[in-house]
Amino acid sequence: MGKEMTLVIIRHGESEWNKLNLFTGWTDVDLTETGHTEAAAGGRALKEAGYDFDICYTSYLKRAIHTLNHVLDEMDRNWLPVIKAWELNERHYGALQGLNKADAAAEHGEAQVKIWRRSFDICPPALEPGDERDPHVLEMFRSVPREDLPYTECLKDTIARAWPYFEREIKPRMEAGERVLIAAHGNSLRALYMMFEHLTPEEILEINIPTGVPLSYTFDEEWNILDKHYIGDPETIAAKIDAVAKQGTVKK
Amino acid sequence: MGKEMTLVIIRHGESEWNKLNLFTGWTDVDLTETGHTEAAAGGRALKEAGYDFDICYTSYLKRAIHTLNHVLDEMDRNWLPVIKAWELNERHYGALQGLNKADAAAEHGEAQVKIWRRSFDICPPALEPGDERDPHVLEMFRSVPREDLPYTECLKDTIARAWPYFEREIKPRMEAGERVLIAAHGNSLRALYMMFEHLTPEEILEINIPTGVPLSYTFDEEWNILDKHYIGDPETIAAKIDAVAKQGTVKK
Repeated sequence: MGKEMTLVIIRHGESEWNKLNLFTGWTDVDLTETGHTEAAAGGRALKEAGYDFDICYTSYLKRAIHTLNHVLDEMDRNWLPVIKAWELNERHYGALQGLNKADAAAEHGEAQVKIWRRSFDICPPALEPGDERDPHVLEMFRSVPREDLPYTECLKDTIARAWPYFEREIKPRMEAGERVLIAAHGNSLRALYMMFEHLTPEEILEINIPTGVPLSYTFDEEWNILDKHYIGDPETIAAKIDAVAKQGTVKK
Repeated sequence: MGKEMTLVIIRHGESEWNKLNLFTGWTDVDLTETGHTEAAAGGRALKEAGYDFDICYTSYLKRAIHTLNHVLDEMDRNWLPVIKAWELNERHYGALQGLNKADAAAEHGEAQVKIWRRSFDICPPALEPGDERDPHVLEMFRSVPREDLPYTECLKDTIARAWPYFEREIKPRMEAGERVLIAAHGNSLRALYMMFEHLTPEEILEINIPTGVPLSYTFDEEWNILDKHYIGDPETIAAKIDAVAKQGTVKK
């Protein structure tokens, strides 16, 4: 048996804007009480399953950072190194950020909003430079090269920053034997999922990772998947997968 | 006017074992409710005073990490990089860890316990190698070179690891213009305080930094102190300084 590599990814729990059904993107909203509870449950599941890590990654957004903090609390691993990367942020949703679905449909037409939500490479309207939501004017991104910051993104764009980050920063550590935990977002985690599993754009659009449920991958030295499974109580996991599948349907 | 450098240090809020009056050292106990509240108040005070940072440091111990998390939450700066360093841990209290003062006095005599508490360079009894409290057997320290881990420490030993860490890792960043926040412990922060202010061993033993109150230093290029002040409501700060001064007296 060759060398095996372990990676666990976890999508943040419910956020305040998930609950309000608003397009969130890079808006830095916090977890709801449910979201905090989901994250802690994910951490307990990892602990009970005997997982341990050498290094953790998360985005710049507090809903992912707080999810990771809960997991580390529950695992009694607060002392693990944590690296925050803007490249693991959620997909930027452009000028739709802050709108609810009804507002967006009223402004742009329901058919158009569906296209932005379900397409791989069509971006929502871009933010105006200097808009209060523009990452170029937000303190959070002051250390990021200006030309790397988006005004809007399609899923393809999100993948085009999240996957190279993984390849550059995380892959070498895993190949050196480090066990990695990543707490991030639906679309930045889709980037990893798509590349690990060699999915097409059509296929990745059908994948919805449930919130707060750790997903464990084991790879061989050639990055073939030896094992992949969600961690936690099977009934809870089944219910969550069912819920995101329905959410995916409604989205279309 | 030459280049100025800013550093803020904050001692963690009340921990569970502070409250129980136990020797804590490297025992990884959490904050009490009061401790959480103190830390959040420290963060709000920093925000209200207009502070901002480029990088944060803390220890491996959750009472310091959670204090920093509260500060970053209140400042809306969750996305700042955080480096965790065992060198910023509290003084290791050797075989006294987990004892209360009465137990320690019963076992070793009150006069001896006073010496361990008030001396600069006399260590409490060392842990037996393999003791469940021995850092060499704790997962938390698995990445630390074995020979660097203590079985006990006097204040001089704590300074001998915390100050070189500051000089090696933090000083160059400050000299490059980065604004630094450190959330740590009574004795690891004493190391910095002693060196910044050129105190003697006798003098540093008289200094008790209050919990949860940010202490701001401004230095010139030669590390002369241009300004030093606690941040927050003056009455609260005065009461806290008074409380730690009394605690210091009782300790003797």
